[in-house]
Amino acid sequence: MLIVMRQDATREQIDAVIRAVEERGCSARSIPGGERVSIGVLFNKGPIDPSGFQDMPGVKDAIPVTRPYKLVSREVHPHDTVIRVGNVKIGGENRVIIAGPCAVESREQTMSTAEHVKKAGAQIFRGGAYKPRTSPYAFQGLEEEGLKILAKVREVYGMPVVTEVLDLEHFDVVEQYADIVQIGTRNMQNFSLLRRAGEAKKPILLKRGMSATVDEWLMAAEYILSEGNQNIILCERGLRTFVRHSRNTLDFSAIPVVRRESHLPIIVDPSHAAGYRDQVLPLSRGAAAAGAHGLMVEVHSTPDFALCDGGQSLYPEQFEGLCRQIRAIYDICDESLDRGGSGETV
Amino acid sequence: MLIVMRQDATREQIDAVIRAVEERGCSARSIPGGERVSIGVLFNKGPIDPSGFQDMPGVKDAIPVTRPYKLVSREVHPHDTVIRVGNVKIGGENRVIIAGPCAVESREQTMSTAEHVKKAGAQIFRGGAYKPRTSPYAFQGLEEEGLKILAKVREVYGMPVVTEVLDLEHFDVVEQYADIVQIGTRNMQNFSLLRRAGEAKKPILLKRGMSATVDEWLMAAEYILSEGNQNIILCERGLRTFVRHSRNTLDFSAIPVVRRESHLPIIVDPSHAAGYRDQVLPLSRGAAAAGAHGLMVEVHSTPDFALCDGGQSLYPEQFEGLCRQIRAIYDICDESLDRGGSGETV
Amino acid sequence: MLIVMRQDATREQIDAVIRAVEERGCSARSIPGGERVSIGVLFNKGPIDPSGFQDMPGVKDAIPVTRPYKLVSREVHPHDTVIRVGNVKIGGENRVIIAGPCAVESREQTMSTAEHVKKAGAQIFRGGAYKPRTSPYAFQGLEEEGLKILAKVREVYGMPVVTEVLDLEHFDVVEQYADIVQIGTRNMQNFSLLRRAGEAKKPILLKRGMSATVDEWLMAAEYILSEGNQNIILCERGLRTFVRHSRNTLDFSAIPVVRRESHLPIIVDPSHAAGYRDQVLPLSRGAAAAGAHGLMVEVHSTPDFALCDGGQSLYPEQFEGLCRQIRAIYDICDESLDRGGSGETV
Amino acid sequence: MLIVMRQDATREQIDAVIRAVEERGCSARSIPGGERVSIGVLFNKGPIDPSGFQDMPGVKDAIPVTRPYKLVSREVHPHDTVIRVGNVKIGGENRVIIAGPCAVESREQTMSTAEHVKKAGAQIFRGGAYKPRTSPYAFQGLEEEGLKILAKVREVYGMPVVTEVLDLEHFDVVEQYADIVQIGTRNMQNFSLLRRAGEAKKPILLKRGMSATVDEWLMAAEYILSEGNQNIILCERGLRTFVRHSRNTLDFSAIPVVRRESHLPIIVDPSHAAGYRDQVLPLSRGAAAAGAHGLMVEVHSTPDFALCDGGQSLYPEQFEGLCRQIRAIYDICDESLDRGGSGETV
Repeated sequence: MLIVMRQDATREQIDAVIRAVEERGCSARSIPGGERVSIGVLFNKGPIDPSGFQDMPGVKDAIPVTRPYKLVSREVHPHDTVIRVGNVKIGGENRVIIAGPCAVESREQTMSTAEHVKKAGAQIFRGGAYKPRTSPYAFQGLEEEGLKILAKVREVYGMPVVTEVLDLEHFDVVEQYADIVQIGTRNMQNFSLLRRAGEAKKPILLKRGMSATVDEWLMAAEYILSEGNQNIILCERGLRTFVRHSRNTLDFSAIPVVRRESHLPIIVDPSHAAGYRDQVLPLSRGAAAAGAHGLMVEVHSTPDFALCDGGQSLYPEQFEGLCRQIRAIYDICDESLDRGGSGETV
Repeated sequence: MLIVMRQDATREQIDAVIRAVEERGCSARSIPGGERVSIGVLFNKGPIDPSGFQDMPGVKDAIPVTRPYKLVSREVHPHDTVIRVGNVKIGGENRVIIAGPCAVESREQTMSTAEHVKKAGAQIFRGGAYKPRTSPYAFQGLEEEGLKILAKVREVYGMPVVTEVLDLEHFDVVEQYADIVQIGTRNMQNFSLLRRAGEAKKPILLKRGMSATVDEWLMAAEYILSEGNQNIILCERGLRTFVRHSRNTLDFSAIPVVRRESHLPIIVDPSHAAGYRDQVLPLSRGAAAAGAHGLMVEVHSTPDFALCDGGQSLYPEQFEGLCRQIRAIYDICDESLDRGGSGETV
Repeated sequence: MLIVMRQDATREQIDAVIRAVEERGCSARSIPGGERVSIGVLFNKGPIDPSGFQDMPGVKDAIPVTRPYKLVSREVHPHDTVIRVGNVKIGGENRVIIAGPCAVESREQTMSTAEHVKKAGAQIFRGGAYKPRTSPYAFQGLEEEGLKILAKVREVYGMPVVTEVLDLEHFDVVEQYADIVQIGTRNMQNFSLLRRAGEAKKPILLKRGMSATVDEWLMAAEYILSEGNQNIILCERGLRTFVRHSRNTLDFSAIPVVRRESHLPIIVDPSHAAGYRDQVLPLSRGAAAAGAHGLMVEVHSTPDFALCDGGQSLYPEQFEGLCRQIRAIYDICDESLDRGGSGETV
Repeated sequence: MLIVMRQDATREQIDAVIRAVEERGCSARSIPGGERVSIGVLFNKGPIDPSGFQDMPGVKDAIPVTRPYKLVSREVHPHDTVIRVGNVKIGGENRVIIAGPCAVESREQTMSTAEHVKKAGAQIFRGGAYKPRTSPYAFQGLEEEGLKILAKVREVYGMPVVTEVLDLEHFDVVEQYADIVQIGTRNMQNFSLLRRAGEAKKPILLKRGMSATVDEWLMAAEYILSEGNQNIILCERGLRTFVRHSRNTLDFSAIPVVRRESHLPIIVDPSHAAGYRDQVLPLSRGAAAAGAHGLMVEVHSTPDFALCDGGQSLYPEQFEGLCRQIRAIYDICDESLDRGGSGETV
């Protein structure tokens, strides 16, 4: 941290700040400047709260200068984490497509969608058994019955399945059935759930909160890692902004930033970001080209009759087109990377 | 809902939309206009997802027209809800000041702060025993030990206490000790926690999510109400915006909007909104004058040594000044309201 | 500026950064820390662009530490600026109420509104003669004819008038008729217009851009000041956020921040911030109590027939109630400040 | 517009609303529903301001249902506009790359950069002669001298040039030298400038305001079109959000939305959106893949010595890699579109 003193700060005020730093077990280093003095805070073991200093007499500003996360950081762990789920690899140079309905509504709808997405090229199946709904009166999911249907998908189509867990209470049962356990955008800072996820034997797909900074998101992953689970897939799903033509605004810059800062894989969910079906394909192509390690796309065998988010779910034939285009883009990008034309950290 | 057709929509497309409406158990009414046809969706029991229609051929837009909440609505329950906690009333014409430290750090710090805020005029004491922290390495609270210290505050100073619950697992113990159970901004859409809060015997203080709309916030309250707990205090605590001179941006318009839409009391937390001590007093005066039913303010007997958010905590003597000014503002506003000069719904 | 090096930065990389700093005419000071080295940039005359350093090999971050503005700063000019317009003073301990219609629509509507607001207690009259409209097909204002009507208001009711200038082309004519020239939110960074305003003999009312930081706003004022015009009134009018229950979100924290950072007066426009009439009174009371130097409120003698923004304009009798309440709040706040209970910088 | 009445609205209130609609020269159609009555407003020639109705007794909400723009709309003009500048076509199936420095700093720097970008594959050259700067003390551009250097670039390298105009005063001189006149993000709602652009003989590159909705952006284009200039290139350059890891957040959804709503070409400026060089390539690939008609990228022959935005400018060799990758992506996308796999309007 750097503490910037006011132009008119007195020697006593500067000394008081230095003492306050030292009382917190850190070293303080005075840095005289042309117009004012600054004080560097050194040897702190973790982040220090700047708010304790910002209000001391004579202080103009207190500015944090180091990142708060450690285990998720590429500085600590320079090589890309690659996660294995069945035969599928996620992270590093691998590219994954996850697809399926927003919610598991029935065995027929789920199996039929699974058949379609498998054929089109999806490697992992998604579907919600426990649904977070803004309204208590909306369809809340088939619960354990839904998990069993997902297990059937894995059995019949050989695809690993990812599904969301909403609370501690159901973590065990979700972990039992799922190959990847998803923590949703509204639970990104549900710290009890993150700790439990850290003890899980299954990989965790951690969605970014819709108004979370990348730092907060990586800190949420740090909660999971700090309990011992290193298999975390980050999923960008759009920010809440003033924009009204899409449900959320996908933060494409987060892709290179996360790839530079962390070793964890990052995938993109264009369906929840867009909220409208006709934006899903352009956003998917964009995310693939921007360097995401994969996509998670909503597909429904009959979206017009979906109980949840039907308007953003692709028709099976649209998803086929998407897979074809995405594969072509991945080929290009890989080729470009091979020729060293990237300019990225990766 | 209103479905607006494109100018060039065909008769077949219009009929298909009407059939789709009717298949969902609603009535459709065609509304011919100058340039285009619109279709009104009537007799729906709850909100209908517009996304199912937005993508049908010939459809230009699908626009929801009714509010999604019911039990929290003033349409259903026209009179202000007044909540009694010990001798304190919250809601209606009553104005409340809640104060205390961000976290319960020790018995001494807590009792000393309680003595100060009681003397200055606070009616309810706040303090965190379980702390939601962005970093797994930060101080996480004294847990049950902290709850016992809060019980001691109630015993010694006769003030009801409010404290936050972070998860289902600790709801019982928090409910046992607290007079009001707080659900924090990060848990506003933790639906399992909301349902459990709906079964609680204690009032719930429900903070607004930092990027939640008022509708989503009222729907979160609807979750609690729909399980039977009618004693809910809404707490505005600032939105995440692009602004950097404060931690968050307090949404003052939410005060009159919530008072018009709902019968539940709304209070304001200026401390977490600001993040800086010198903004707390102006924001508190503003919130009181704008019509909030109360304030929840962070005060610490020695903020420079606080383990959490010290920079936004008031010194005891600052809080005294705040109480004096706030009471004067409440007197003015009440008087004005009596003279009928309000112009508000209230 | 502080340049933070990566943990693994080499001696050569550190030296290269130091050379780059020195090539820009500044001094560099190396600050060794526990985990990494930082480099302080000293004796720079103005702000340095951090982007030039952020990308050098071995650099983790480059962080600006001094404010970019000078003449608007309280550090340079410690005492409040007080602006005199006719008999009205704006700034310091003075509180002003500006009122009038969004647009000057006709002589009758304008004079009638002026009579009402004068009687209720407004000190300055507002009204738009040149209107910035999102649509080219909307009413664009009466132009010079409107300015003449405003001059008539001043003549008949003895109130100074404020009106908006949209472009360089009409600056002369607006300056000729107006007592205060307004620069609107969409023009806050119209730098040619700001420079022209700096040469004006009349005070400037500078609205904050709807997505401008306080720093950018103060820099816009710095453009005006740097050309010699010191009479600037800052006007907060709400930010564009994700919120939909109001047109914009008023940034109340900007009030204490501007008062601390700058000597210029800051007033609040609750009408454009809200967009809805029933929020105007609560926001006005809040802004007055939070320490604004004044308010600018839309009032229309017959808002239901307004050509522009009628829904946010107060009825004359509502404005009377507003003036009564605001005066009472100002009395309280002044009294509190006298008793030293403020805790603010002011 | 649809006016939704409250559940308890009386017959008199409903009739009053209908009369108010008819007084504005429109037709009103009453639409009885299960719980409440709504009133459709028909045959209005342009958009009606909902605020005039929202406050009438018994009214719950007033909701606009038609788009406010006409000439920019695909409904009015179904086929893609293709703009010819020299030998370059922009729009429709054509893809363009525009490149050059943020500012024209000297003849050497400009010619050297032009040589690089021409060789790498840029078709149009960009460079600022008049620079909008937040600070009055920052480098403001070489002005007409800069324009002459741009003319030299066109002469020597045969590339059309695009450069920004800041105000009415300099429009003539900019139009004289430039092939495309750019209106920047801060001037998107400088309506006088837009009208002047509408009279220009040169195409206009209209950047989106950093907090403008797509509707407002298209309305700004409507200003230009309504004066007779149909050659408008829309340029998405990122939104102001709470995010701090990039300067702005590129709104990728705007690409398919603009392509569906309007016939005008849309390009993307990844450099100003990112603010950091290492995000420019991923964002460029993303934008190309998402369907943008082109890119405008900052390249500097020696970015470390740039007077403006050096940290976001690509090195010439990075730009070569970018062109290679972007061309490959365009090939893929075109091929995909040919095979009908798009699912987009295009």
